[in-house]
Amino acid sequence: MTYCVGVLLNDGIVMASDSRTNAGVDNVATFCKMSVFERVDDRVIVLLSSGSLAGTQAVISRLRQRCEAGDGTPSLWSARTLFDAVVLVTDAVREIESRDGKHLQASGIPFNASFIIGGQIKGKPPRLFRTFAEGNFIEAGPDTPFFQTGEAKYGKPIIDRVIEPSTSLANAMKCVLVSFDSTMRSNLSVGMPIDLACYASDSLKLGLRRRFESGDEYFSALSNQWSCGVRAVFRQLPDLPS
Amino acid sequence: MTYCVGVLLNDGIVMASDSRTNAGVDNVATFCKMSVFERVDDRVIVLLSSGSLAGTQAVISRLRQRCEAGDGTPSLWSARTLFDAVVLVTDAVREIESRDGKHLQASGIPFNASFIIGGQIKGKPPRLFRTFAEGNFIEAGPDTPFFQTGEAKYGKPIIDRVIEPSTSLANAMKCVLVSFDSTMRSNLSVGMPIDLACYASDSLKLGLRRRFESGDEYFSALSNQWSCGVRAVFRQLPDLPS
Repeated sequence: MTYCVGVLLNDGIVMASDSRTNAGVDNVATFCKMSVFERVDDRVIVLLSSGSLAGTQAVISRLRQRCEAGDGTPSLWSARTLFDAVVLVTDAVREIESRDGKHLQASGIPFNASFIIGGQIKGKPPRLFRTFAEGNFIEAGPDTPFFQTGEAKYGKPIIDRVIEPSTSLANAMKCVLVSFDSTMRSNLSVGMPIDLACYASDSLKLGLRRRFESGDEYFSALSNQWSCGVRAVFRQLPDLPS
Repeated sequence: MTYCVGVLLNDGIVMASDSRTNAGVDNVATFCKMSVFERVDDRVIVLLSSGSLAGTQAVISRLRQRCEAGDGTPSLWSARTLFDAVVLVTDAVREIESRDGKHLQASGIPFNASFIIGGQIKGKPPRLFRTFAEGNFIEAGPDTPFFQTGEAKYGKPIIDRVIEPSTSLANAMKCVLVSFDSTMRSNLSVGMPIDLACYASDSLKLGLRRRFESGDEYFSALSNQWSCGVRAVFRQLPDLPS
């Protein structure tokens, strides 16, 4: 499984992904699910992958090849808007689906590659999208400023409680990490390392990209403090009157 | 959907269920999912239903009819152990499945009725079981002292953090209610009222059965205090060092 989160704030965008892949419990591996397309002072586009690894890797490879081709083929470097960039991503999803889909279907496996895509292109506002396996997609707005993919339910309550468009980038990063911590405690299919990216509006360069390996000092402190704090809040709750 | 929780503690058993049923978003109704079979000083058996309402209601009706028959048919009143009681429940599940299953299948609907069953029969220890639609079942133990059915993921992190066999009944009730609160904030298919039951070991009578309607004073206070407390813990978390 997978857990990915993207959050769109007034101050910018925070995105994070786990890195566990598994095909059955005896085939567990680590792959980075975060892909960054960055040209400082022009654009930052971050993609978080979920679905079948073969599908999402093929999509990313195709997107990178087109960026490198420099032959006028539309690519993430030439997209005029983030909407156009998401169209290119989902076009690539459909290309891979048309190549692999029927072969997967023959084995009863559905094609599945979806992305959370956030970033900014010079002269345009920061935007956040979530694509589906079918290649259609939705965009975050002030009413729902975040998207999750994969094992989203365990870590949703803390995001529901904390995240608003006015949340600071620093708080959003903490919230996303706590959301991962809750998810990993309750579900084995989501695992460290966690890749975290933070983008400040109009900076046109990635402000932070950090990998939290298992045992990371800050992440462990955050996790412990959260756990102790939550238990302390719990202890102070009023007993049910008899 | 549904959310049900049963917790087995050294001090007894806490069980709770929501009461929302839905067949599509435009067919939402309220049905109690908690059924109590109690003979003071002899036995307390509490069932929490999840799955298709037609299936679970038929099972409960069949169990009640057998209790009322008084003709020597094995029933929840005559079961010698809680294991035997769970066998009777799951026999009833299979009877209903053999009556309804093929008709549901013709419409592409799987038969689905499962239960969390907790309680105590005089002279035996308190026990907690979870049955599956197929009629097989598992029993809680000190390593995993709780079962959830339905929309279990949102409310699992707080149970994972708090519940141990040594947890008091009062704390377990609070924890279960917080778990429902988190679930209902993040998922519309789980809804008030919540039915809560608390059984103290060897008491052989239900210590508490309480329904929390929407707007319940205690539940609202618990929810607010939890929400404020969690946000306060969150605010005190250390920022990511730059």
